[in-house]
Amino acid sequence: MTQPSIPKGTRDFGPEIMLKREYIIETIKKVFKKYAFAPLETPSMEQLNVLTGKYGEEGDQLIFKILNSGDFLKDLKEKNIPIANTTAKEILPYISEKALRYDLTVPFARYVTMNRNDITFPFRRYQIQPVWRADRPQKGRYREFYQCDADIIGSDSLICEAELILIIQEVLTNLKIKEFTIKMNNRKILTGIAEKSGAVGRETDICVAIDKLDKIGDEGVKKELSERGISNESIEILMPVIQFQGNTTEKISYLKTFLQGNEIGISGIDEIEKTISTVSILGQVPQLELDISLARGLSYYTGAIFEVKANGVQIGSISGGGRYDNLTGLFGLNGISGVGISFGLDRIYDVMQELNVFEHISQVQTKVLITIFDEKSEGYSIELLSKLRTIGIRTEIYPQADKLKKQFAYADAKKIPYVVIIGENEIKNKLYSLKKMETGEQKELKIEELLTLLSE
Amino acid sequence: MTQPSIPKGTRDFGPEIMLKREYIIETIKKVFKKYAFAPLETPSMEQLNVLTGKYGEEGDQLIFKILNSGDFLKDLKEKNIPIANTTAKEILPYISEKALRYDLTVPFARYVTMNRNDITFPFRRYQIQPVWRADRPQKGRYREFYQCDADIIGSDSLICEAELILIIQEVLTNLKIKEFTIKMNNRKILTGIAEKSGAVGRETDICVAIDKLDKIGDEGVKKELSERGISNESIEILMPVIQFQGNTTEKISYLKTFLQGNEIGISGIDEIEKTISTVSILGQVPQLELDISLARGLSYYTGAIFEVKANGVQIGSISGGGRYDNLTGLFGLNGISGVGISFGLDRIYDVMQELNVFEHISQVQTKVLITIFDEKSEGYSIELLSKLRTIGIRTEIYPQADKLKKQFAYADAKKIPYVVIIGENEIKNKLYSLKKMETGEQKELKIEELLTLLSE
Repeated sequence: MTQPSIPKGTRDFGPEIMLKREYIIETIKKVFKKYAFAPLETPSMEQLNVLTGKYGEEGDQLIFKILNSGDFLKDLKEKNIPIANTTAKEILPYISEKALRYDLTVPFARYVTMNRNDITFPFRRYQIQPVWRADRPQKGRYREFYQCDADIIGSDSLICEAELILIIQEVLTNLKIKEFTIKMNNRKILTGIAEKSGAVGRETDICVAIDKLDKIGDEGVKKELSERGISNESIEILMPVIQFQGNTTEKISYLKTFLQGNEIGISGIDEIEKTISTVSILGQVPQLELDISLARGLSYYTGAIFEVKANGVQIGSISGGGRYDNLTGLFGLNGISGVGISFGLDRIYDVMQELNVFEHISQVQTKVLITIFDEKSEGYSIELLSKLRTIGIRTEIYPQADKLKKQFAYADAKKIPYVVIIGENEIKNKLYSLKKMETGEQKELKIEELLTLLSE
Repeated sequence: MTQPSIPKGTRDFGPEIMLKREYIIETIKKVFKKYAFAPLETPSMEQLNVLTGKYGEEGDQLIFKILNSGDFLKDLKEKNIPIANTTAKEILPYISEKALRYDLTVPFARYVTMNRNDITFPFRRYQIQPVWRADRPQKGRYREFYQCDADIIGSDSLICEAELILIIQEVLTNLKIKEFTIKMNNRKILTGIAEKSGAVGRETDICVAIDKLDKIGDEGVKKELSERGISNESIEILMPVIQFQGNTTEKISYLKTFLQGNEIGISGIDEIEKTISTVSILGQVPQLELDISLARGLSYYTGAIFEVKANGVQIGSISGGGRYDNLTGLFGLNGISGVGISFGLDRIYDVMQELNVFEHISQVQTKVLITIFDEKSEGYSIELLSKLRTIGIRTEIYPQADKLKKQFAYADAKKIPYVVIIGENEIKNKLYSLKKMETGEQKELKIEELLTLLSE
């Protein structure tokens, strides 16, 4: 038997990590519930045709496909498909019908479409589940990772955008991530900029290039725009706009001038202004800023676009989202607008680890260890175990008589704060020796004293 | 676009179902934590070679395999494997290296083996995650379902068995499943019975047959035993033993006589007695009984075997487990004994649904809906939303001005108990109209009165 391993890009989460992850999930869930989102879970596997074509060609490549069970070659053989000369792509439909979900948004759209008659719209759902991508693993990028999504579908009110912004702020603040930036943009502004630059309908190309501004810089973006067939003239108009420096108010006023007379662009600005004003009624969100170059590859966004970064940590975005006017249209259900955000649990974990904000989370899983002194006293130890658990104290018993030193070492390794010893003397005097591991202090206590002390 | 669907044997869990499932998971988790088990999560995908050969040939067939990403035919082509004349089984290793986990026990054994140097033994871990099996779907059997496991590994003390029995009782009692039976047996007793019947070493065959007693009856089992090559003489000795009627004390005394002089059999009886006596120190468990015919297909069990059924519900077992002396031996780490139990979330859900014990679970997800009377009053409504959420009340706002009737219908459909209306009059008089949906009663309240009433 060779040494076992786990697949590349996946991880085991032992007790210490799990406690931290559960803390993050519980914090996010609590905020989602406070904002009246209802839980949903969808299957890990989706029909392959539900997923393909939704994430672009590159995305399709990254979907984990599941081999049909049983004799998966049956269909191929029956239909005489000559495998030797075919490509993987051609035979795929014959040997795989299912795949692991790639995100939570497409399964959500599938769910809404299938259950449209039973759902009360606007539908506010949250969903916290793993997703899988066959991406090249690297820092902050895993092949299995958790997304925590909240979406409101069936309303085009900008109050929804404002609520999601508040959720982002509340979640990150509750997690004690102090410094973060919520970047906001609007697809309509990007469309307006494209139109005003004489590159009508080219916003996708423009956005793909703009998205790389951080990575490839000014000149890189210009080159990429040019390669994508955007004229030099358009590029000259575009670049100053997406690079405009200033605070949100200055950017809005600059854009109002630049986009003058462009209907869609101006409506994008209006949406931004209305969202900001609603946010200001709901609370103070100084972390919110307009970022004209924010595009997030556009994908299916039609209005607001969000992206959140933790300041001072070299890791990608920890949350993102936006409005999609026709996501369920992919499945034939048209005219339903939605808006959502997604938190990346694993990236948030990495950020919190780097910022050292997990310190306050208790690592105590067991409060008391009861030792077994010898076989004769075993029954007394078991009896105490029952008493302590009955009053709700997390207690465990060292399962067999062994050297006390070994039992103490176990408590030590597991960071158990209290150890009880019940030996011959204790039994005779009806007392319990309690050792506080931190100080080494040891006391003999009556049962009532022991229960009182440990209940504190 | 065709109507989307989900894979056979999988399910979406909408808000109402999710609340019930979360309630079950939280109840189980709370007991696991009280008994000082620490959380673990392993990846959904395991290396195929970690899983295959662990669940028998039939089990191997039911493992969902994941297609290698990218050009999965590459290896086949490079190695000139002629697909036309090969079987699925032969080409599998070339096109798939990963699979979805089939249970939580083998991944746990893999984890323990890989992390043996960092783990403090005995290691008490719980794990609540989905598993996948390509089984034929039917009532109570799904292709994706949750297991909730608790294991203690690294101790052969029978106190562990007793603790797990208490856990089963506490979990099911807390879930308000009143009538259930915890069946217990011991592999060593089965081995002893095989030896005493002159069928030395044939306990696997015997157990596979015995396991079907419920389904195929007396004669069916005899026939199967015979087909499996057990002599008629052995069958004649065996059958009365596994069918012996009586309470646990009577069964123990009967077995002591029958197994007299058989070392392993008698040690099995000793273990049962010791476990029962430890259980009795820890609490009252009248649901516990010895079942001589309990085998659970044996698989890797070497000592205790458990199985739990809800009485009066036609569904398979809702929990099961046992002791395995050498599970990590599968991965080259020998000499570590463990014992564990597994709760089937989905079956427990089905049982609770059938027994109607979910009634007490609140389905209220939103406590208050704030309506938007018209555009003019929108700001007031948003302001109140912020106030109510600040004091922790689950509140939502109907996201746009619309007919009040429609907004009330929304509250009704979502079973939201309170609705607030803020119209022109309310704004003028600084009052809030609160409607209690259940009674239809409507009151005008000052802000302090409103906050107080809703905080109750």
